[in-house]
Amino acid sequence: MSTLSQKQKAEIFLGLHSGPKLLVLPNAWDVVSSRILEDLSYPAIATTSAGVAAVLGYPDGQRVPRDKMLEAVRRIVDAVHVPVTADMEAGYGHTPEQMVETATATLQAGAVGMNLEDVNEEAEDSQVELPLQVEKIRAIRDACTSFGVPLVLNARTDVYLNRIGDPETRYERTVERLRAYQKAGADCLFAPGVGDRETIAKLVSAIDGPLNILISPGCPGLKELQSMGVARASTGSSAMRATLGLLRRIGEELLGEGNYSSLFEGAIPYHEVNQILGRSK
Amino acid sequence: MSTLSQKQKAEIFLGLHSGPKLLVLPNAWDVVSSRILEDLSYPAIATTSAGVAAVLGYPDGQRVPRDKMLEAVRRIVDAVHVPVTADMEAGYGHTPEQMVETATATLQAGAVGMNLEDVNEEAEDSQVELPLQVEKIRAIRDACTSFGVPLVLNARTDVYLNRIGDPETRYERTVERLRAYQKAGADCLFAPGVGDRETIAKLVSAIDGPLNILISPGCPGLKELQSMGVARASTGSSAMRATLGLLRRIGEELLGEGNYSSLFEGAIPYHEVNQILGRSK
Repeated sequence: MSTLSQKQKAEIFLGLHSGPKLLVLPNAWDVVSSRILEDLSYPAIATTSAGVAAVLGYPDGQRVPRDKMLEAVRRIVDAVHVPVTADMEAGYGHTPEQMVETATATLQAGAVGMNLEDVNEEAEDSQVELPLQVEKIRAIRDACTSFGVPLVLNARTDVYLNRIGDPETRYERTVERLRAYQKAGADCLFAPGVGDRETIAKLVSAIDGPLNILISPGCPGLKELQSMGVARASTGSSAMRATLGLLRRIGEELLGEGNYSSLFEGAIPYHEVNQILGRSK
Repeated sequence: MSTLSQKQKAEIFLGLHSGPKLLVLPNAWDVVSSRILEDLSYPAIATTSAGVAAVLGYPDGQRVPRDKMLEAVRRIVDAVHVPVTADMEAGYGHTPEQMVETATATLQAGAVGMNLEDVNEEAEDSQVELPLQVEKIRAIRDACTSFGVPLVLNARTDVYLNRIGDPETRYERTVERLRAYQKAGADCLFAPGVGDRETIAKLVSAIDGPLNILISPGCPGLKELQSMGVARASTGSSAMRATLGLLRRIGEELLGEGNYSSLFEGAIPYHEVNQILGRSK
């Protein structure tokens, strides 16, 4: 697969959204996490912005500069065969022109997919106005056409995740936004913060395009999500945060009783990690 | 502590080796792992070369270029208050002059400690000749004096770790080397691969300087290591490899039954990770 062009990778990645198999993406945050997932035969790698930012020392929310985010994406692209999709948060900008710059830079980094949020980092509860977000998506679509690679755009609305506005209107506003994003050219529609069976089922019916669900505690299992017609399920930063939790337990155990059970239980052996990284792409 | 000079940090770090308390260092590999350990009140951060390399996509063994290794060290130094010591493998070179360059670059990156191995990456079982390794250590000592910061040099012999030479002579060769390294100016003596109670006790008696033990499965617990007179205990890459093992289990669980128990059990919440990274240094 290493001889595939970027365009071919984008087409393959888009095809993974058209079911009936659920596309499962446990988001990666550095090269070794990406390689481990690729070795498990995940068909694509999605980055987590929070994870990439944490490695470099930034909180989530566009604090990590765009070029550093894309350097991390580039390292992953260079290390795996499979398509890579980049979490580019709110696109690092406020105007359609800035979205063109970000989408072009994302393609130049070798990614074939991109996540775009509709909330800027400045205020968690203030959403980009719908017409402007639609313009941004159109601008990204046009930029990809110019670039010659059909970037798989995953357009996200944070109405549920950030608990924006009157709870009773959230479902309708989510549907309104995702439909508009889809018409503007988004390939996949992402509603993080939606985890209950009923709302997921309603969204699958209401949205005329692939739906991405963020895996959250208590949400239906992957087999059920697949049978409900969800196209894509991702973990966001939770896999990275699970590993950080383990590191904390290891550190606590060493400081406390001074024993090593969590340090060695289930660790990948040294030589195996070197093999994972040493194999040619 | 943020106003401490680099020299002061080096002195504090050196002081942590003079007991009676064991210096425990669960090696970190990126900014967030360093911050988590600092938040647990570890008094210093040690990097793992294998971990830093894995994040960037390289196997261990000086495959990651020195400048990239030191960029990672710099990011950690910039993110924590406590002293940082860098695993610089075999010093990225073969001559005393190259050791001076590496030690100076390590100090320029803000680290106040450095690990130096006595096996080069080219052949795991071929050790640097003892006189040359002694020259290298002297050169590093001189370089620190010129720089004006008393870099805490942790000189390592890989006789046991890499199973070099006749097993019956390993103990004697280890003692010979560590004594020579100490006389040449090393501040701490590191014998990875030694994990049994008896050999550790003999080494503590034989070496006239702080001894570093690599925590390995089956080795005595930290309280016992402390009571035996070990000065420093580190995890090497094992904490990082434990987290990679967890990621693999998460990935397998999602691909298999499609449930999320290992994904969410014990994960650090999203907002907490952002707080860990968002606090001022």
